[in-house]
Amino acid sequence: MALDDTWFTEIHGKDGSAFSLKLKEKLHEERTPFQHIEIYDTEAFGKLMVIDGCYMVSSRDNFLYHEMMTHPALFTHPDPKKVLIIGGGDCGTLREVLKHRDVERAWQVDIDEAVTRLSETYFPELCDSNGDIRARLLFEDGIKWVQEAEEASIDIIIVDSTDPVGPAEGLFTEAFYRDCQHALQTDGILVQQSESPLYHLELLKRMRKAMRNAGFREIQTLYYPQPCYPSGWWSATMANKETTGLDGFRENDVRNKIFKTRYYNADIHKAALAQPEFCKEAGLV
Amino acid sequence: MALDDTWFTEIHGKDGSAFSLKLKEKLHEERTPFQHIEIYDTEAFGKLMVIDGCYMVSSRDNFLYHEMMTHPALFTHPDPKKVLIIGGGDCGTLREVLKHRDVERAWQVDIDEAVTRLSETYFPELCDSNGDIRARLLFEDGIKWVQEAEEASIDIIIVDSTDPVGPAEGLFTEAFYRDCQHALQTDGILVQQSESPLYHLELLKRMRKAMRNAGFREIQTLYYPQPCYPSGWWSATMANKETTGLDGFRENDVRNKIFKTRYYNADIHKAALAQPEFCKEAGLV
Repeated sequence: MALDDTWFTEIHGKDGSAFSLKLKEKLHEERTPFQHIEIYDTEAFGKLMVIDGCYMVSSRDNFLYHEMMTHPALFTHPDPKKVLIIGGGDCGTLREVLKHRDVERAWQVDIDEAVTRLSETYFPELCDSNGDIRARLLFEDGIKWVQEAEEASIDIIIVDSTDPVGPAEGLFTEAFYRDCQHALQTDGILVQQSESPLYHLELLKRMRKAMRNAGFREIQTLYYPQPCYPSGWWSATMANKETTGLDGFRENDVRNKIFKTRYYNADIHKAALAQPEFCKEAGLV
Repeated sequence: MALDDTWFTEIHGKDGSAFSLKLKEKLHEERTPFQHIEIYDTEAFGKLMVIDGCYMVSSRDNFLYHEMMTHPALFTHPDPKKVLIIGGGDCGTLREVLKHRDVERAWQVDIDEAVTRLSETYFPELCDSNGDIRARLLFEDGIKWVQEAEEASIDIIIVDSTDPVGPAEGLFTEAFYRDCQHALQTDGILVQQSESPLYHLELLKRMRKAMRNAGFREIQTLYYPQPCYPSGWWSATMANKETTGLDGFRENDVRNKIFKTRYYNADIHKAALAQPEFCKEAGLV
């Protein structure tokens, strides 16, 4: 069965697969100095943002990604107050971060302001917390921002970026991780989206190695479903600077959290830490 | 980007999505008395079997489904000796079942012999155990087979069927579950593929209700990734007849198992039991 142009399709070339969403209409398209952004209304996934031909966020399934990029790291840290989001221009991660009442400051540093302006228009539910007094929305180069950050000034760094090609490439390097080390407090945690365990195992291994070479002590990959991303199965990788173990978390705080989530809870936190057998064999332990 | 006929595409109509695999060539096609079967060689997923336009099994990702349809139930049961597989004609589930050395008899009852003959040709690795002295490959109506089974003669029933339309429809009914109850020993467990938690939550709720109405005591849905199935996120639902709790399992036996798996292990077993928040809210607890 052939798919025509009433579908948006992302092809995952080397893995010979493609995922498509049926469209109602194109709502917007622009080329910014950094990337090509399209916004669609879909038949069954709500609104859709596409960057450089790749799914970024859909109304229907973004809760999986945004919750898993945020809550495991924030509930693993003993007391996160200062959170830096690199990328994350759609503001969904920022919204999840600010659900934590003890967070005092959250910087979202995305190089492309257009992503945020379009998200405000087409994904207003993700931008609920943009006006929060604790939020700082900056449109700058995140790599440079981390380089210039004060030593030991940040509790959590969340790297919520596009794939490691184009503008996000520098976010997967040892040099960047060294700068993160420098910016993090001793109990600090870095968490980064780390692609599909089925499609991108070699990338995951390289990322983890670069984090280790940069001085991170423990490294823990988390797994979760994300239907609109390649293979529908996604991961995030946490790394700690010194003192915060990654295999435990503030479980009571999760069980007593006063905010709502749609995927994440204490059992899901533990579940996400489980390593599939082939990932163990690949050294992702 | 349009996809032409060098791709196989399954469209998930009501969910407005589609998953496609790039093809090298069509290897076989036939219409049996029961269904339309196609076999392809793909660019990156190995061989592919399609039934009535739906992905059944690919070489690359079937390990996820087959392991999760088998090992959680068999390691939950205290001592499974007699295992019935309804459907499962590709023989991948049978192979996983027979990895358990204490299993004495495994019946695979698939209505369509062609599925097994094609699997022997194109997925020989799934058919490794077809010659096992403990295996019985039957090509009959599984619903009728269970109706006529001796009372309390089976330890585990695995329903490894196609979607609940066409020949598999009767496998999702209270009447069928009553027959399963009758055929199971008191410590028996039923496990059934139960579709996508994201796309088919209402079906999951109906299945679980029908199982409960048929007299099953505890019902537990398990979650796992399955890239080539709709949404890439899949589930199985276990139900116990009387005495076997579904929240524990023979963890030491899993940790000391002498056979290899690629996804399943003790941590993954526990992880699969975790209920996402929206599934809890839907009553899947």
